[in-house]
Amino acid sequence: MAPIRHWRDLTIAIVGGDAREAESARRAPETGAAVRAYGFPWPDGGVLGVTPAASAPAATTGADIALFPIAGVKDGCLYAPSLGTPIRIDAALLGGMAANGHIICGSADATLTREAAARSLTIHTYEHDQESRLLRAPSVVEGVLTTLIANTRHSLHDSEIAVLGQGVLRHLLAVTLHKLGARVHAVARDPVQRAEAVVQGIDACNFESLPTIAPCLDILISAVPVKIVDAALLRQLRAGTLVVDLASPPGSVDLEAAKALPIKAIWARGLGARAPITVGQAQWLAIRRWIVAIHGL
Amino acid sequence: MAPIRHWRDLTIAIVGGDAREAESARRAPETGAAVRAYGFPWPDGGVLGVTPAASAPAATTGADIALFPIAGVKDGCLYAPSLGTPIRIDAALLGGMAANGHIICGSADATLTREAAARSLTIHTYEHDQESRLLRAPSVVEGVLTTLIANTRHSLHDSEIAVLGQGVLRHLLAVTLHKLGARVHAVARDPVQRAEAVVQGIDACNFESLPTIAPCLDILISAVPVKIVDAALLRQLRAGTLVVDLASPPGSVDLEAAKALPIKAIWARGLGARAPITVGQAQWLAIRRWIVAIHGL
Amino acid sequence: MAPIRHWRDLTIAIVGGDAREAESARRAPETGAAVRAYGFPWPDGGVLGVTPAASAPAATTGADIALFPIAGVKDGCLYAPSLGTPIRIDAALLGGMAANGHIICGSADATLTREAAARSLTIHTYEHDQESRLLRAPSVVEGVLTTLIANTRHSLHDSEIAVLGQGVLRHLLAVTLHKLGARVHAVARDPVQRAEAVVQGIDACNFESLPTIAPCLDILISAVPVKIVDAALLRQLRAGTLVVDLASPPGSVDLEAAKALPIKAIWARGLGARAPITVGQAQWLAIRRWIVAIHGL
Amino acid sequence: MAPIRHWRDLTIAIVGGDAREAESARRAPETGAAVRAYGFPWPDGGVLGVTPAASAPAATTGADIALFPIAGVKDGCLYAPSLGTPIRIDAALLGGMAANGHIICGSADATLTREAAARSLTIHTYEHDQESRLLRAPSVVEGVLTTLIANTRHSLHDSEIAVLGQGVLRHLLAVTLHKLGARVHAVARDPVQRAEAVVQGIDACNFESLPTIAPCLDILISAVPVKIVDAALLRQLRAGTLVVDLASPPGSVDLEAAKALPIKAIWARGLGARAPITVGQAQWLAIRRWIVAIHGL
Repeated sequence: MAPIRHWRDLTIAIVGGDAREAESARRAPETGAAVRAYGFPWPDGGVLGVTPAASAPAATTGADIALFPIAGVKDGCLYAPSLGTPIRIDAALLGGMAANGHIICGSADATLTREAAARSLTIHTYEHDQESRLLRAPSVVEGVLTTLIANTRHSLHDSEIAVLGQGVLRHLLAVTLHKLGARVHAVARDPVQRAEAVVQGIDACNFESLPTIAPCLDILISAVPVKIVDAALLRQLRAGTLVVDLASPPGSVDLEAAKALPIKAIWARGLGARAPITVGQAQWLAIRRWIVAIHGL
Repeated sequence: MAPIRHWRDLTIAIVGGDAREAESARRAPETGAAVRAYGFPWPDGGVLGVTPAASAPAATTGADIALFPIAGVKDGCLYAPSLGTPIRIDAALLGGMAANGHIICGSADATLTREAAARSLTIHTYEHDQESRLLRAPSVVEGVLTTLIANTRHSLHDSEIAVLGQGVLRHLLAVTLHKLGARVHAVARDPVQRAEAVVQGIDACNFESLPTIAPCLDILISAVPVKIVDAALLRQLRAGTLVVDLASPPGSVDLEAAKALPIKAIWARGLGARAPITVGQAQWLAIRRWIVAIHGL
Repeated sequence: MAPIRHWRDLTIAIVGGDAREAESARRAPETGAAVRAYGFPWPDGGVLGVTPAASAPAATTGADIALFPIAGVKDGCLYAPSLGTPIRIDAALLGGMAANGHIICGSADATLTREAAARSLTIHTYEHDQESRLLRAPSVVEGVLTTLIANTRHSLHDSEIAVLGQGVLRHLLAVTLHKLGARVHAVARDPVQRAEAVVQGIDACNFESLPTIAPCLDILISAVPVKIVDAALLRQLRAGTLVVDLASPPGSVDLEAAKALPIKAIWARGLGARAPITVGQAQWLAIRRWIVAIHGL
Repeated sequence: MAPIRHWRDLTIAIVGGDAREAESARRAPETGAAVRAYGFPWPDGGVLGVTPAASAPAATTGADIALFPIAGVKDGCLYAPSLGTPIRIDAALLGGMAANGHIICGSADATLTREAAARSLTIHTYEHDQESRLLRAPSVVEGVLTTLIANTRHSLHDSEIAVLGQGVLRHLLAVTLHKLGARVHAVARDPVQRAEAVVQGIDACNFESLPTIAPCLDILISAVPVKIVDAALLRQLRAGTLVVDLASPPGSVDLEAAKALPIKAIWARGLGARAPITVGQAQWLAIRRWIVAIHGL
């Protein structure tokens, strides 16, 4: 097989996903690569430079690169809400790819890892690409704002809000709520994370202080990926407090314990779907960077 | 009848409305006045110090002060969504009020004006109370944010947004969108209003410049109380632009003309219902100020 | 004398002032008017379209409009620091102006008022032009920041600061200090002014609360035009607090009483001189508006 | 010698520096350690719990820990402006320290490195302690603001400003100038650094775009530690632009080339001295952390 020296030598298959992947698909042909697509909501009027495939294998056969959905490789399937059923990760999906091909996705599950290894396909994940995460963060924050507004009868302005956890998203969420006029407490274990909040004019404390501030809160938001908001902490909250769990399963909040208390606890899922055009463009930046690195383009 | 010298000499009837009025009702007994209520959603567990009445006349009979809903005096009725049907403004409603009583509401329609005059009842409107408007503004802005987020596929962050019109709400909306990272254009006729935006780091222009910036916009928001966003202006917008009308009827945007164009135009109504507790508290400040002024308390 | 129908029919004299007036002078010829200047620092290379006069009377003789310095009509003289001595307001200065001429200045003192009236010259003041004030406000705030930074050993960030008084400048100062990470208390008598602060996420209180917050302050700034920061209030402050008086004479702070206390009190004067180009441009907007109004141009 | 198990077993010598070290000295006795001091401005009234020494050797003799100034180990001496002459790093200074003692400083020069090694003293530098850097950053930014305001005739508000370089300080400076109403361009090589600016609503570009934006700038600030602002770039700037070099020697800007151009170029040094109390407290956090780590306290 001829070596890949230029974008025009590449065939990319985009399989599964939602409107975010549709936006990545819109960007991909600008590189000069051949692009085939299957399994995401197909826009009215099509996508310039992208060939719709009749099936997932039709898309991947002969492809050098397969793009799978950022948040959608799970239980041996690809997320594909527009199809009704997910796309199975199996021999039909992967068997026809070009020798030594590459799979780019958010993160890989056990099935994808095994099936790719069996065919000498290399997996590249971009979930942790820092630039892409940053550029997606405002969209996710806007999704969180919608969730908070829909579940409160007070304004966010002038509310007392604790944001638990570290990282880009939590920092931007805390800064944004502060800008909207909330009294925000950034709760983090790492003193550097606390200092980043303090520098932006936001109160910061460690987890030991949480029981002290808990009774004053209108809203408690946690993105810590362990069950840190337990029954004991929930009992410190006053009646009417909103508790929002932003963590992936198994989540951060003991939702079962919350049911017995006069508070409102919700698990905010699917925030990544807010602003699919913006998010799809940010994803594409990370994907493109991987392709450049893989093939030295 | 004994003169009113103290709050405890007063009887207040709160009739109609929604959760905002429920919150005003919660505050009213703190003054020491006798408070009766009818026609708004009655909270589980009741409201401490407030007597629920069996009908609107039962609430108003003998009352010195009647509070009617801020946004709900229209077509001869009071807004009362929890009742299924509105409450008619008629002899039954007003006939039993104390001699020389007072009605406090957002604004009065022709029926209320006529019926009150016929019974020597004085009307006081607080729609334009500036402190109360300011304190309600963040809640309304949050309602607008929800509307914008629900109707866009780009993030507000990094969007190009024009905000048309003057006043407290538009200024706070422009400032808030700017803080969220949008590129905001404040469009106003009054140079003072434009300067207020400029001082906050926001680009400002007059309406003559609007056709020039229109083709770059992702979102156009208008709160001007005349049909200023006409077919000619709408045709300047690019495909996919979101147009949001915040004005009261008859509105600011030619929604009929918008239907023929590849844009999305919506009339955002009912934003006052966001954060009813915060809004109800702000209303109560204005209402309380009226009562103090009326009776010299 | 021929009526003035166009800018080109006008002769404007700019007399006295500092770099702000030099900037106004730069703008004036753009209108088409004839412009003469005397008594402000003359830029190297001159000002395109402006004729330097040999004396103040040489500038004003025959002029339809005389511009005097915004902050510099006092004790019968015009402020003119570049001359060494101020310019007297007398017959020589005003006697030669065109019949029914106009004087535009920040504010007039008794001498100017009397001398102008004696010659049927009309005075127009622009000190209170709201657009111009707003556009000058960021420059003045930057001057205040410099003063605060030069007089503190703590960062403004994380300081506890009270800002007393109302108006555009105080509001922008409070908002700016809040953005820099200070914990700001806006102290105002008017509930609307307090609400404007609250809406921006700033704590607000009335003067009755001041003794309560005084002991926690790092900085107290007052722009109230009466001696409200008296000995009793100063004694509430802890050692090391910085007190800044922004008011015009006679000032807001009892500086004499402050000397006996372990605090630092300063009278910040001349803040209007910060950013003379920006301020001069903002002044010119107000001046130009007056000329348009006077002559219906 | 007895092992160090508690803070009370420790003797700390603080030698050299300025008001920042005086503030560290104020904090040190709170730990319970014995603290001696020499060579920084001694506060009126002394420092509770700190023993002033008669000379540098008198301070260090027998000390377990020596603290040297954060920004002041250079050319074989310690910075000590209050003494008139710097303190030499020699046998007299170090020879009497406890066996296996520790030196904590911002960064070490060749002399300190050599002299410490010769005596089995271990050096610990905290210049790069991230929490401490963050907490010092607002103070440094305020110092930069003063420099910018003192050297411009336009307001920072509404100015066009490029900030070159990466890191905590540059990010906070860009965010602060944006909040003050400047139009900021964050110029960075690293896409993650650019994304951090974008997320805060700030325009970002790489160095390749700099020649394009240069002619529009009012202010160019560089903290890049190499001479990136060369004659070619300086020639792109328009007359009157302010160029500020924030880098350590040898600096970021070709100041010699700047002299021949109609621009104003300055090297802003000593910004670390702004807000010595705040900065000294932030330094102490990093120092304390080192002592805890060294002795397992």
